Amino acid sequence: QKKVDLSFSNRGKSLEDELNETNEFYLSRGIAVIHKKPVPIQVVNVNYPERSAAVITEAYFRTPSTTDFNGVWQGNYIDFEAKETKSATSFPLQNIHDHQVEHMQSVSKQGGVVFFIVKFTSLDRYFIVPYDNFEKYWERMKKGGRKSITLIEFETMSLEILPRFNPRLDYLKAVSIMTTTSNNATERQEDV
Amino acid sequence: QKKVDLSFSNRGKSLEDELNETNEFYLSRGIAVIHKKPVPIQVVNVNYPERSAAVITEAYFRTPSTTDFNGVWQGNYIDFEAKETKSATSFPLQNIHDHQVEHMQSVSKQGGVVFFIVKFTSLDRYFIVPYDNFEKYWERMKKGGRKSITLIEFETMSLEILPRFNPRLDYLKAVSIMTTTSNNATERQEDV
Ligand SMILES: [Mg+2]
Ligand SMILES: [Mg+2]
Repeated sequence: QKKVDLSFSNRGKSLEDELNETNEFYLSRGIAVIHKKPVPIQVVNVNYPERSAAVITEAYFRTPSTTDFNGVWQGNYIDFEAKETKSATSFPLQNIHDHQVEHMQSVSKQGGVVFFIVKFTSLDRYFIVPYDNFEKYWERMKKGGRKSITLIEFETMSLEILPRFNPRLDYLKAVSIMTTTSNNATERQEDV
Repeated sequence: QKKVDLSFSNRGKSLEDELNETNEFYLSRGIAVIHKKPVPIQVVNVNYPERSAAVITEAYFRTPSTTDFNGVWQGNYIDFEAKETKSATSFPLQNIHDHQVEHMQSVSKQGGVVFFIVKFTSLDRYFIVPYDNFEKYWERMKKGGRKSITLIEFETMSLEILPRFNPRLDYLKAVSIMTTTSNNATERQEDV
């Protein structure tokens, strides 16, 4: 019999695990097909022993040039980066790479649905930030401003995801709200 | 100065390289954002030497559960598997995994644009096969029928991509034709 955590808290579980579980839920119900991309690894040396599997004996982690997760939901291209922070007050931007931001910008221009999911581990709080909202904080840093986004800023410019039992993090519900809102905004602009 | 192969033939280049070059072309022109997924590797042991990068000293290749390439093109989710064969007469189905086909079926149901690109290396010929067309040949095999798709079948049920200089394999042009055709087919059905 499987043990079930009835507290709904799941403290200690990584954000990646929580998202993988959520994505399995989505896949099994036919809701969406979204996967974690494998970590990019540069393989330098491989041994091929007789009668057993090839063994990689020298390899290196490479810096990811894209994001963690992508896939399809109701015909929409979904692409996001998941990040955790131990800070209880702000999210540091230093472990986001330029290449990742460039990738997200390209995806946004191409009509994809692209965002961050940020977990404040010490608070057990989760936020989903559309790339377009994120961009101004990135530019603020690039112009010499602060190198982080404060919790208060998250509370005003992102949607909070409340963790549940199953699926653990129903982020597509938030995406659904986000895309509806931005479509309305676009429609309003077109009406002018 | 870079050497340029003016023969347009590029024999010996792998299909993966040709597709990576094409995707770089698409990305640089703002046409699409499509990438090869990293090969999934299970890392077993890592050394962390002082003052230098972590070295993976034991790892294994894992069977991919999804496809080679995915991304976004004009808001559409694009997902495909690339395969080469040395045969001049048929494409063997044995190196396509059940998990990959299940993945492609899920993507198709979710409204993604999903297909195979098959290269007959000895003929220097390339075909693009929508997943929906592929399915009946897969089912034929599952029911005990032939374990390959013949070249003649490719000629009737897929689009041939003629290699060019730049981009090398303009497969999105073929996708554009495919999606227009299937939309028309849908419209026709709705008119009944
Ligand atoms: Mg991440
Ligand atoms: Mg392949």
